[in-house]
Amino acid sequence: MPAHAEPDDARLTALLSDLRARLGEAAVQTDDAALGPHLAEARGLYRGRAAALLRPADTGEVAFAVEACARAGVPIVAHGGNTGLVGGGVPHGGVVLSLERMTRVRDIDPVSATLTVEAGAILAEVQAAADRAGMLFPLSLAAEGSCRIGGNIATNAGGTNVLAYGNARDLVLGLEVVLADGRIWNGLKGLRKNNAGYDLKHLFIGSEGTLGIVTAAVLKLFPKPLARAVAFCGLASPADALALLETVRRRVGAGLTGFEVLPRFGLEIVLRHVPGVSRPLQGTHHTYALVEVSTARPGDDPAAALEEALGEAMEAGRVEDATIGASEAQNAGLWKLRETLPEAQTREGGSIKHDVSVPLSKLPAFLEEAEAACVQAMPGLRPCAFGHFGDGNIHFNLSQPEGMEKAAFLAEWERFNRIVHDIVDRLDGSIAAEHGVGLIKRDELLHYGDPVALDLMRRLKAALDPRDLLNPGKVVALSANPPRALP
Amino acid sequence: MPAHAEPDDARLTALLSDLRARLGEAAVQTDDAALGPHLAEARGLYRGRAAALLRPADTGEVAFAVEACARAGVPIVAHGGNTGLVGGGVPHGGVVLSLERMTRVRDIDPVSATLTVEAGAILAEVQAAADRAGMLFPLSLAAEGSCRIGGNIATNAGGTNVLAYGNARDLVLGLEVVLADGRIWNGLKGLRKNNAGYDLKHLFIGSEGTLGIVTAAVLKLFPKPLARAVAFCGLASPADALALLETVRRRVGAGLTGFEVLPRFGLEIVLRHVPGVSRPLQGTHHTYALVEVSTARPGDDPAAALEEALGEAMEAGRVEDATIGASEAQNAGLWKLRETLPEAQTREGGSIKHDVSVPLSKLPAFLEEAEAACVQAMPGLRPCAFGHFGDGNIHFNLSQPEGMEKAAFLAEWERFNRIVHDIVDRLDGSIAAEHGVGLIKRDELLHYGDPVALDLMRRLKAALDPRDLLNPGKVVALSANPPRALP
Repeated sequence: MPAHAEPDDARLTALLSDLRARLGEAAVQTDDAALGPHLAEARGLYRGRAAALLRPADTGEVAFAVEACARAGVPIVAHGGNTGLVGGGVPHGGVVLSLERMTRVRDIDPVSATLTVEAGAILAEVQAAADRAGMLFPLSLAAEGSCRIGGNIATNAGGTNVLAYGNARDLVLGLEVVLADGRIWNGLKGLRKNNAGYDLKHLFIGSEGTLGIVTAAVLKLFPKPLARAVAFCGLASPADALALLETVRRRVGAGLTGFEVLPRFGLEIVLRHVPGVSRPLQGTHHTYALVEVSTARPGDDPAAALEEALGEAMEAGRVEDATIGASEAQNAGLWKLRETLPEAQTREGGSIKHDVSVPLSKLPAFLEEAEAACVQAMPGLRPCAFGHFGDGNIHFNLSQPEGMEKAAFLAEWERFNRIVHDIVDRLDGSIAAEHGVGLIKRDELLHYGDPVALDLMRRLKAALDPRDLLNPGKVVALSANPPRALP
Repeated sequence: MPAHAEPDDARLTALLSDLRARLGEAAVQTDDAALGPHLAEARGLYRGRAAALLRPADTGEVAFAVEACARAGVPIVAHGGNTGLVGGGVPHGGVVLSLERMTRVRDIDPVSATLTVEAGAILAEVQAAADRAGMLFPLSLAAEGSCRIGGNIATNAGGTNVLAYGNARDLVLGLEVVLADGRIWNGLKGLRKNNAGYDLKHLFIGSEGTLGIVTAAVLKLFPKPLARAVAFCGLASPADALALLETVRRRVGAGLTGFEVLPRFGLEIVLRHVPGVSRPLQGTHHTYALVEVSTARPGDDPAAALEEALGEAMEAGRVEDATIGASEAQNAGLWKLRETLPEAQTREGGSIKHDVSVPLSKLPAFLEEAEAACVQAMPGLRPCAFGHFGDGNIHFNLSQPEGMEKAAFLAEWERFNRIVHDIVDRLDGSIAAEHGVGLIKRDELLHYGDPVALDLMRRLKAALDPRDLLNPGKVVALSANPPRALP
């Protein structure tokens, strides 16, 4: 018997009727056109199924819907922008509850440097609201035009500004959450210090909708940077990238706001596939680092500081060549080389992906060992390890050998997971650094996770959602017969 | 029947015998000389009782001891330096488990900027270990010469560097914890990004030894500041302090590493009671702000940046007078005016204390309203509200009227709690901002806490320590008949 028996027709009909009475007809949809986008997921690896799409307008309606579903024993998958990369939003029956109508900025307080916003606000709109108040909300990632802040919080999103400002977790001061039984926890305090009991917000942040549904948050704002400098550097190795990182960090401290790395293969495919980019350096190099230094302080000259740091690293033989953007347009052009790499990789055929982190000091060893192991396992394979080097977080992607059939390559997904994740595990790293666990990594987490940690996670899930109604089968599976992780 | 019946003599004797066999005779002490310091607490408000003091030498011994106590149904209160200010370490029977022998730095990795240390290391020694590696561990507070890092983590300690570096919570990357049943959770990963399941470390941080016993931690290190500038400013009001904070923050961004405030009464009693301090400004002022700007960047001039910010605030009429330390000795002298205030207050007789926070924008209103309400409730009362203004965290202390009997004044503790905490609650603040809940604030938390939040906390406690053996009766009481919160 499956963990969640489908509710019989009469019970479902009664539930949807109750929901329509409270939320309105338009907020309870069962047609394919409305449901379709919520059954698909970004990578096309899964196709979900759900009886209805709920679109509540406020927290009270979310609470009503969750309570009604709980009474009927119907599971709920909460959706923000549905841009996740690990299948965390795929429903297996039950209903999808979209926060998309809850987009209001409830409060903005520049003195306290806080912004209170509903979960359905699109990340780019949160950034814009902060900007209009003369402040910065630093969370920034590729999907920012369509992902929603509630989803960012539920997945503890990362992105390119983590080095200076932290993950989504570090940007949240307070939360409002609808619990599995429909009660509302109002933890919307905008305090920098609060030790009044256990910290509940961190429990929900990064729990991927399995412990509660985030409906609103108090976010931290920061002084807006006044100027930035961006360098694109050619290096002989990842070890030199690490040495460069240390040099820049020592010289500019908190001014270091970006340190991304891509391999030679990565830059070449960007130059091959992406229109409107140009080669940043004359020669070619084993490894490239994009370095950003920012300042919020009037009169500071980040370009001068960055030049000094690069000069020191060049003298030490750690940098082969480098260019610094001479204008904001050039800075954006350099960033574009990094930002368009995932899209360029798609054009190169199938890609087996890993989202891993290791302690910074082990990053060069990891890259060397993992690339060698993968190429040995499949000659012709083209490793494309890139990403947030300064955070120890690498998107260790593998482009298929030229001429191989894409499906045949992707069929090797689990074999390469094992090769790469074994090395990550041995180096005290994480097999789910940034994108979360969802469905794709759930069984990998069972494989590598400390049994004590997994037991604690199950206890938390059982304590907060004892009937396993919130995004069941994701992160940690409570039921004996959860949905299969791989399609 | 009390929640924890005393174990009968035979059971206790057998337990202590098992513990002596594994931990050694010297690590299981029952004499008053050894136990005494662990039954007292910093403010002298409570006196605990315990059957034995356990001093395990490593994590395996902690696990053995906890498992043996759990089997015998004997409660355990974990102790670091026992410097807490809320009665969180007071035992009501059972045993005290001190981490004082576990002081080893297990690893230091300057490239990854991490330090792995056992829970019993004294905070000042952790700072010194980081310093020897050319890095900064920024947690800093009055008790740093005797408090231990495990206790700092268990209480999510704050201190004077929170503004720039965050609370203890923000400085922890990984934990090792002995659970209530004696199992060890090894979460000692030094990763900047890790979304492999629920974040367990945040559950234990700040839980005051009620959910598990922290035995080791991976801490974040930072580039060591190369220079700092410290100003002592005379202001007309807390509103001007807030305006000054905004000006400095806008001009120096992350370079602002300290913003403390004290009232005129506070400075006067420091000058009266503390040897070796001198009046920093010629006139007197309603409010004083201590402002620190630091830099980790070679060539930066923090004094010049601070002078510019003060100049702007003076022109705007927000600062009446100010002095900037001309040497490190002078900087330390200005800090001493703030750091010795608690000690000066003790010399002024009885003090009723509140450790509260409100959103920054509400801080001036809070101070005005709460001071007026308290003085109205007891003419002659001398409010002494000081502390970490930049974090919205005020130690809202009340010095007794001159000539009043100390005991009679302290008997009014609960009445003033109600007056002050009612205002804090109305302003969306916290009644336990920095020092935690422990025993002193436990019933206040019941009074003000959101019932949904309290229910969640009890569920977490029940999920992780179902038999209520870890520091029972603290933070949230599970049992029906917990120890009285006030003596």
